[in-house]
Amino acid sequence: MKIIKGQKVIYKFKNEMDYIERVKPKERFVVETNDCFFQQIKSEDMTLKELDFDCLNPATGPIYVEGAEVGDLLKVKIIDIEVEDKGVAMTIPGEGLLGDQVTKNKVKIIPIEDNYAIFNGIKIPIEPMIGVIGVAPAKEDGEWPTATPWKHGGNMDTTEIKIGSTLYFPVNQEGALLALGDCHALMGDGEICITGLEIPGKVTLEVDVIKGKYTKWPLLETEREIMVLASGDNLDQATYEAASQMVSHIKDALDFDFEDAYMLASLVMDLKISQLVDPKITVRAAVPKEVLATEKLLEGIK
Amino acid sequence: MKIIKGQKVIYKFKNEMDYIERVKPKERFVVETNDCFFQQIKSEDMTLKELDFDCLNPATGPIYVEGAEVGDLLKVKIIDIEVEDKGVAMTIPGEGLLGDQVTKNKVKIIPIEDNYAIFNGIKIPIEPMIGVIGVAPAKEDGEWPTATPWKHGGNMDTTEIKIGSTLYFPVNQEGALLALGDCHALMGDGEICITGLEIPGKVTLEVDVIKGKYTKWPLLETEREIMVLASGDNLDQATYEAASQMVSHIKDALDFDFEDAYMLASLVMDLKISQLVDPKITVRAAVPKEVLATEKLLEGIK
Repeated sequence: MKIIKGQKVIYKFKNEMDYIERVKPKERFVVETNDCFFQQIKSEDMTLKELDFDCLNPATGPIYVEGAEVGDLLKVKIIDIEVEDKGVAMTIPGEGLLGDQVTKNKVKIIPIEDNYAIFNGIKIPIEPMIGVIGVAPAKEDGEWPTATPWKHGGNMDTTEIKIGSTLYFPVNQEGALLALGDCHALMGDGEICITGLEIPGKVTLEVDVIKGKYTKWPLLETEREIMVLASGDNLDQATYEAASQMVSHIKDALDFDFEDAYMLASLVMDLKISQLVDPKITVRAAVPKEVLATEKLLEGIK
Repeated sequence: MKIIKGQKVIYKFKNEMDYIERVKPKERFVVETNDCFFQQIKSEDMTLKELDFDCLNPATGPIYVEGAEVGDLLKVKIIDIEVEDKGVAMTIPGEGLLGDQVTKNKVKIIPIEDNYAIFNGIKIPIEPMIGVIGVAPAKEDGEWPTATPWKHGGNMDTTEIKIGSTLYFPVNQEGALLALGDCHALMGDGEICITGLEIPGKVTLEVDVIKGKYTKWPLLETEREIMVLASGDNLDQATYEAASQMVSHIKDALDFDFEDAYMLASLVMDLKISQLVDPKITVRAAVPKEVLATEKLLEGIK
């Protein structure tokens, strides 16, 4: 398998970028990812002043996927996420959901043993996930720092972007130009203190191209559900966007009127908070595949 | 077992209410509940004009629990929820998360067969839950319509208030004065169109009293998690409240400083949307019991 090393990274998703590697549809390959601090934090005594803020959220790539053209969907299956044996979490006064209650910048280096994170003696099973993953944004959509989630993906910080899940990104540039980084060994929905368990990783992916289908926001498929990942300036905007796209998929795929699609969504669709601490907030709208199979949803896209 | 009939209902939770029945700690009893429309909807042709809006969200009760005193917690275990063989869902122009896209008032009567709801031919396994459940609010907190969720409970519309779950309410009046109604056979997190699958039910409960413990917001325990249920004027307020109380529980129960409690919550606590369509929005902050056992959390309350 091809191994794409973690030295060549981007800090902005742009419509035009020079790719560092090419892969083929159905190819499996490994991507080495850096933690969100580019491994700058070596000790719990490190202070914010010592941190180079120009090196936050590096994403390895871009990776050119052969056959991907504007107006297609890029399918990215997550085969495996291997993480290192320790990671970092941090509080910063004023930052995160309860920032007003934080009195000090505290850095914690958290060891991982036999797939358990050890936090002050408490053993917690890890659930590795990818924080930043995305493709070239549409030209009219401008440039996006890797720290921000948007229609092209980016820092969606979604716990269900994990082993076994599949992402579907709208392709806005030839080759799609995939890049990723910022794995977490562990994170709760919300990521309230602004970090998960930040950690370098080795991610095994398999990509494919779905011709002639396009969505406004990325889709994510897990074992049980298919979901829309939408971001906005606040929770209200993000929930509206995610719900609106999913209700529209239900309407088109099942050939319902709007009201029936809306009612069915009210009965079976879970609106879940992904994160509420990045420059934009991310929410997912998830429907059981028993009710709306992924193939059916994709067929409904005209 | 005592059966408390559904004819005697309240439409407001108040600090002082006349109870209709008394139960003892550890007693199991059945409560018959009405749907949120008090069974007014008999046909899909029914229009909003025909609906008596003074009879929405009836809650059966209040029920006096012996031994419950101000400053205690009332423990309410949900043993069973039996629902009828059909329920109702509805759209109303302008109402719900995507209200701006709704063009007509549509009423749907949805049959339930062998524990599956049948929606336009799609079979969906039901997951019965209680929409409205609460106790007398604190005197200084005023009166609350049963349609609104707040510190005393009420219309929390939370999918995990289901068979096997346990609620913990702050007791603000002698006897706690429990009341409940508004079961749903099915609902998604968010309840976006303003209804779930609204249905009358028979709820079997077991109550108990935990002396000398009190919380600002109700707690909910499921098989896997312990959570805070908080409500606010918008999603931001509700998430802040829920997260803040849970971080405080972690801090007190595990004897952490605020920063460690905040970081641990960021790694393991899921912020989940309960509903965003009632007069106040409800969010839950859930932590795995493996990390914070319910007994440990309760011990931490001084």
